[in-house]
Amino acid sequence: MSEEPLSVGVLGYRFMGKAHANALARLPMFFPEAPAVEREVIVGRDEEALADAADQLGFERYATDWADVVDEVDVFYNLGPNNVHADPSIAALEADTHVFCEKPLAHTLDDAERMRDAARDSAATAGIAFNYRFIPAIRYAKSLIDAGELGEIHHVRGRYLQDWLVDPEAPWSWRNSEELAGSGALGDLGAHTIDLARFLVGDRAGDISRLSGHLQTFVDERPVPGGDEGSLEGGGGESTEMREVTVDDAYTAQAEFESGAVATFEASRFANGRKNDHTIAIEGSKGSLSFSLERLNELELLTEGDRGFQTINVTAPDDPYIDHWWPEGHVIGWEHTFVHENYEFLSAAAAGEDHSPSFEDGYRVQELLAAIEQSDDAGEWVDV
Amino acid sequence: MSEEPLSVGVLGYRFMGKAHANALARLPMFFPEAPAVEREVIVGRDEEALADAADQLGFERYATDWADVVDEVDVFYNLGPNNVHADPSIAALEADTHVFCEKPLAHTLDDAERMRDAARDSAATAGIAFNYRFIPAIRYAKSLIDAGELGEIHHVRGRYLQDWLVDPEAPWSWRNSEELAGSGALGDLGAHTIDLARFLVGDRAGDISRLSGHLQTFVDERPVPGGDEGSLEGGGGESTEMREVTVDDAYTAQAEFESGAVATFEASRFANGRKNDHTIAIEGSKGSLSFSLERLNELELLTEGDRGFQTINVTAPDDPYIDHWWPEGHVIGWEHTFVHENYEFLSAAAAGEDHSPSFEDGYRVQELLAAIEQSDDAGEWVDV
Amino acid sequence: MSEEPLSVGVLGYRFMGKAHANALARLPMFFPEAPAVEREVIVGRDEEALADAADQLGFERYATDWADVVDEVDVFYNLGPNNVHADPSIAALEADTHVFCEKPLAHTLDDAERMRDAARDSAATAGIAFNYRFIPAIRYAKSLIDAGELGEIHHVRGRYLQDWLVDPEAPWSWRNSEELAGSGALGDLGAHTIDLARFLVGDRAGDISRLSGHLQTFVDERPVPGGDEGSLEGGGGESTEMREVTVDDAYTAQAEFESGAVATFEASRFANGRKNDHTIAIEGSKGSLSFSLERLNELELLTEGDRGFQTINVTAPDDPYIDHWWPEGHVIGWEHTFVHENYEFLSAAAAGEDHSPSFEDGYRVQELLAAIEQSDDAGEWVDV
Amino acid sequence: MSEEPLSVGVLGYRFMGKAHANALARLPMFFPEAPAVEREVIVGRDEEALADAADQLGFERYATDWADVVDEVDVFYNLGPNNVHADPSIAALEADTHVFCEKPLAHTLDDAERMRDAARDSAATAGIAFNYRFIPAIRYAKSLIDAGELGEIHHVRGRYLQDWLVDPEAPWSWRNSEELAGSGALGDLGAHTIDLARFLVGDRAGDISRLSGHLQTFVDERPVPGGDEGSLEGGGGESTEMREVTVDDAYTAQAEFESGAVATFEASRFANGRKNDHTIAIEGSKGSLSFSLERLNELELLTEGDRGFQTINVTAPDDPYIDHWWPEGHVIGWEHTFVHENYEFLSAAAAGEDHSPSFEDGYRVQELLAAIEQSDDAGEWVDV
Repeated sequence: MSEEPLSVGVLGYRFMGKAHANALARLPMFFPEAPAVEREVIVGRDEEALADAADQLGFERYATDWADVVDEVDVFYNLGPNNVHADPSIAALEADTHVFCEKPLAHTLDDAERMRDAARDSAATAGIAFNYRFIPAIRYAKSLIDAGELGEIHHVRGRYLQDWLVDPEAPWSWRNSEELAGSGALGDLGAHTIDLARFLVGDRAGDISRLSGHLQTFVDERPVPGGDEGSLEGGGGESTEMREVTVDDAYTAQAEFESGAVATFEASRFANGRKNDHTIAIEGSKGSLSFSLERLNELELLTEGDRGFQTINVTAPDDPYIDHWWPEGHVIGWEHTFVHENYEFLSAAAAGEDHSPSFEDGYRVQELLAAIEQSDDAGEWVDV
Repeated sequence: MSEEPLSVGVLGYRFMGKAHANALARLPMFFPEAPAVEREVIVGRDEEALADAADQLGFERYATDWADVVDEVDVFYNLGPNNVHADPSIAALEADTHVFCEKPLAHTLDDAERMRDAARDSAATAGIAFNYRFIPAIRYAKSLIDAGELGEIHHVRGRYLQDWLVDPEAPWSWRNSEELAGSGALGDLGAHTIDLARFLVGDRAGDISRLSGHLQTFVDERPVPGGDEGSLEGGGGESTEMREVTVDDAYTAQAEFESGAVATFEASRFANGRKNDHTIAIEGSKGSLSFSLERLNELELLTEGDRGFQTINVTAPDDPYIDHWWPEGHVIGWEHTFVHENYEFLSAAAAGEDHSPSFEDGYRVQELLAAIEQSDDAGEWVDV
Repeated sequence: MSEEPLSVGVLGYRFMGKAHANALARLPMFFPEAPAVEREVIVGRDEEALADAADQLGFERYATDWADVVDEVDVFYNLGPNNVHADPSIAALEADTHVFCEKPLAHTLDDAERMRDAARDSAATAGIAFNYRFIPAIRYAKSLIDAGELGEIHHVRGRYLQDWLVDPEAPWSWRNSEELAGSGALGDLGAHTIDLARFLVGDRAGDISRLSGHLQTFVDERPVPGGDEGSLEGGGGESTEMREVTVDDAYTAQAEFESGAVATFEASRFANGRKNDHTIAIEGSKGSLSFSLERLNELELLTEGDRGFQTINVTAPDDPYIDHWWPEGHVIGWEHTFVHENYEFLSAAAAGEDHSPSFEDGYRVQELLAAIEQSDDAGEWVDV
Repeated sequence: MSEEPLSVGVLGYRFMGKAHANALARLPMFFPEAPAVEREVIVGRDEEALADAADQLGFERYATDWADVVDEVDVFYNLGPNNVHADPSIAALEADTHVFCEKPLAHTLDDAERMRDAARDSAATAGIAFNYRFIPAIRYAKSLIDAGELGEIHHVRGRYLQDWLVDPEAPWSWRNSEELAGSGALGDLGAHTIDLARFLVGDRAGDISRLSGHLQTFVDERPVPGGDEGSLEGGGGESTEMREVTVDDAYTAQAEFESGAVATFEASRFANGRKNDHTIAIEGSKGSLSFSLERLNELELLTEGDRGFQTINVTAPDDPYIDHWWPEGHVIGWEHTFVHENYEFLSAAAAGEDHSPSFEDGYRVQELLAAIEQSDDAGEWVDV
């Protein structure tokens, strides 16, 4: 653990910026053994918004050029849109600055590859922010699978359903642009699911060996938010201008793991009534489990001798991370996953160790996402 | 309605035989407007078992050759293994005997085609026993979709999970044989799901236009039940002889409807902890629903203005078929689906009308099942 | 088992009449070991309705005076309104005719006592139709409690919620009359809950030793159905005449068992949105369970070593009564409870044995119901 | 809002100390409009533990005598055991220091009365920390009831079930002592339920007018944690010394509101398998709802026109407090209730306004708890 606080620079100050800033702020009270951290600088383009964000999120200053920041801080958080993941992250890694990057790793497979290589060549720690690996119920599930409680894995079923685009009048944003986001539901939501599947069963069933994918766009163009056409984030105002949607609104995939386990995956922004339904179910020769993000404190579990699935409140003192929080049954929220992952990432960085999930994991997920797109194009199964 | 009772001959006297015999026996008390029926003759091979079955199921006599029966009765029920669906059904139809046949229509697409053609050419009524179309919650769902309550359909998600083969020592039966059953989970369970998807959204989203399929066999051979090696049904006794499993233990599929709606399908006999989990979920531009067979009295429904899914107990007096049964909240069971379908089929037969689902529906499902197998073989999407 | 079929006479031909007639009709196919039964005669006042009912429910004839029937049949079913339970049942028992009586045993404690005494003095078998004791999940729960799987019982929580009277314009019926029904939700619904609590934990926790009760009537008068004012059952037509509601719309109670276990009970016909929610939960020193009638195939169970409640589909072949029905996961309905209780009652009657629950059980429940009313009147706890 | 930060002194540094310290620390980032606060001093008896707590929880210093603190700070938080609620709170109020006190208000009704009077006489703001009033789903429920969406209230059903004392070997702590805690499950858990019932329906159904209560102790004595016998908090080490349990392990109650609505209440520390199950259900003439703390982001709601209960994820941007947190479906946790209540309390204090719930509310709950005990002693209903 470092003596000096680690200085942190963060690119991005909206949703993800707030989620990570909050995590950093909460570490001292709940994870006192975490490395000390200084929220040093926040990076963006809009100075007024940056000044406000720095003030509210507790950063000492802001900057408008990431190039000035990446070698000044100890740790660089890349929380920007997918198309600005690669260059700042690579520059930081080349300066041996630790990098924590939001998912998906990049908006193209080429960029993802460059990032993975930069991480390999750097002395610094590189991590990708697949925060759902750090849900107590998920880590508990992983430990059960590793211990053989589910036996040989037969089935994996992952879906991530939201509905915020089901209204055709919902405004266009960078998330609808292939150029800026790379893909739609696939990269935004599917990346989480694919990563979680690999994390949970990869050590038992091997990696995904082949897959078939399907992408669909239900609404081809959307209104551009008025008076804010150049903005990446969209927002406010009426508009009559329409802009093309160049990414998928939903994807589905079938896959086979090396062991022969079969999987189905799906994500959508059109699943009416589903707000943040990231559900993953796994069935094995000895047991089964199911997890759903909207009830993230719970795990449905069946092991040998059980007649039905137990609904487990994964908040006991010896459940992962729980001793840092509250007594049993006093549930945690979505944001706690960020505290856990920041604790793990900063601990690894301070100790000069690798973080898991790594840029290699991020690249592998990217490969699988690319394979889903390639399969959709070709109408064929793809070996990966 | 016919004056004379319709005489009924039934091929098969085990699980499905009992389910349909029970349905016939219950019609007079609960559906007094149904045509009168005489349980005339039950057909099989084992005379002793037949005699017992005839006695318990209330048939007047039994016979060992279906050829003697198909032109003697008014209605012929074909409830035998899949490989004996075609010939007796066709013979009956050629004799203008009404035919009610269990699903899947046949064990090969060729046989299914012959059966469909025979139905077209016959003056009699031909129906396929997709009983899940006759669940009150499903018919209520269908009426909501038809009325536009869900708007344009975006997603269909169907799965049918069981676990009775997860033990590798579970005995071999005709259901594990391609020769006798045609396919495994695909034909046995997937046929139900594909039919239900077509029934529910077909009038809004068109038919399935293309699909990609995947079949998997997890256990390659199983012990033959001792002393009963020639039996189709298996049962009793220890055995050291192993027999090859030549069908799928599980399948997955992706599909696209004519409207652009996307679907995923899956079935398994290896889904540990799932006993009879036939779940179908549909999301549209205005609403969504979800149904699960293990809670068949319930429908999860979201329509415009709702903030969350309503859990509806579909047992109100004006719900489909419910006025024939009990007051609201007094739930019905799985077997009631057979009473409903028998009521509908016999009413159609007595009136000389078509029954829905027809052999044409059965053939179409068979085409889709065959396309899933073809896609699995070729590793390609298949237009259907 | 008797050689000759038992001839059965039934007083009452509406809801309960249909439920029991159906049960009798289904026994031969599903419980072939049950005594043979002849549906001989149905008894009521309205000849036209009786003729129709006899025809539909499969009775050979009808009668308008129970006094002519009770000594002609082998078994007398008393399914009439509560105020006609006593005299016909006692007359039958005095003629050594077996009696199966719907719950609650009577509309007054005095009548219940006379009935209990008549049952004691008769050579015939007397049973009370607490059908919920015959749900497979409930009998499975009972066996677990008896085997000590829940340890010492601490808590019992029973509620029976319906909503069919929440509309103040819902018509008056005999169920709103103290003279005809004795009490309201208390006797109609509470009787079931109290009986189930005694059945489930009585052998571990002893009987209820003291209790405190509360009754409430939310709507004091209701419209009398037009043109049918003399009818006991109510029905059709508009009316401006209002009639007083002289029974409770809801009751609550607290109780203590001999062992010190504590209980709460409640029933209502005003629980908006609850259709037939009969839920009973029990917690003990080693485990807990919960059951709900709207999902009667399921049991929520926690035993030693479990981290959460298992949701068990109580439809395995070795679950109570299930081997008579369908394969695992093929759920049964509410009416099956009548088949089971008729099977048990008729078997006992044919063998000249006692049936459980007996008139003694019915009397004990009646005592507890009366104590709840007495406690409500006095505003005091009552020892029972 | 004050210009200077409000200095805060806190008595108690364990569970509740951490929960409130965390809340104070999070306000600036998520509720920037909240008054600025300085975590000034933490008060307790064990200097070593205090020093650690001050460091971890971000307080500037610690003190061992509350009398030195109550007039030095702007706001005094009383989070100690129930028997030290009165004197420090009263002293603070007499010094016109704002007081925020944990529930129940006191361990005796006399003390509660003194506290209420002190609050009336003080220029400062006094609040009681019934945090569950500040759950978004609860406030949303309250707004629906106030708007008449449930109509006239008929039923209230509240339970708070935990299981941390079901093991007879679980160690004795101050929570088992009447002298230190006043009561057991009744005051610790029941206080929350009674307050929530009053909060939700009080404006529609009036206050509770009469009730009947029952208290039960299942285990009469417990082992004293070794080497820590004088400690209030218990913990570590083996012991052979047993100490008497002088409070209830569970309570039940029936109640009637002024409007005639009926209620049942219950709490237990012996409800095996229930971790933090605080469930409240309400049924009215037009609608119903149900809420459960273990799924605190959800509300089950039925309003006019609904056929079943909607399961609502109460995390939409316009749900109470949610715009301060995350996008829809990104759930919050138990601790967020403390942030909300601290925001409201501090805002009221800074503005010189009353806080709701007030000491008057706390006193009223205490009266009702006392009435439950009195009813239990007398075996009679008690008017309140």
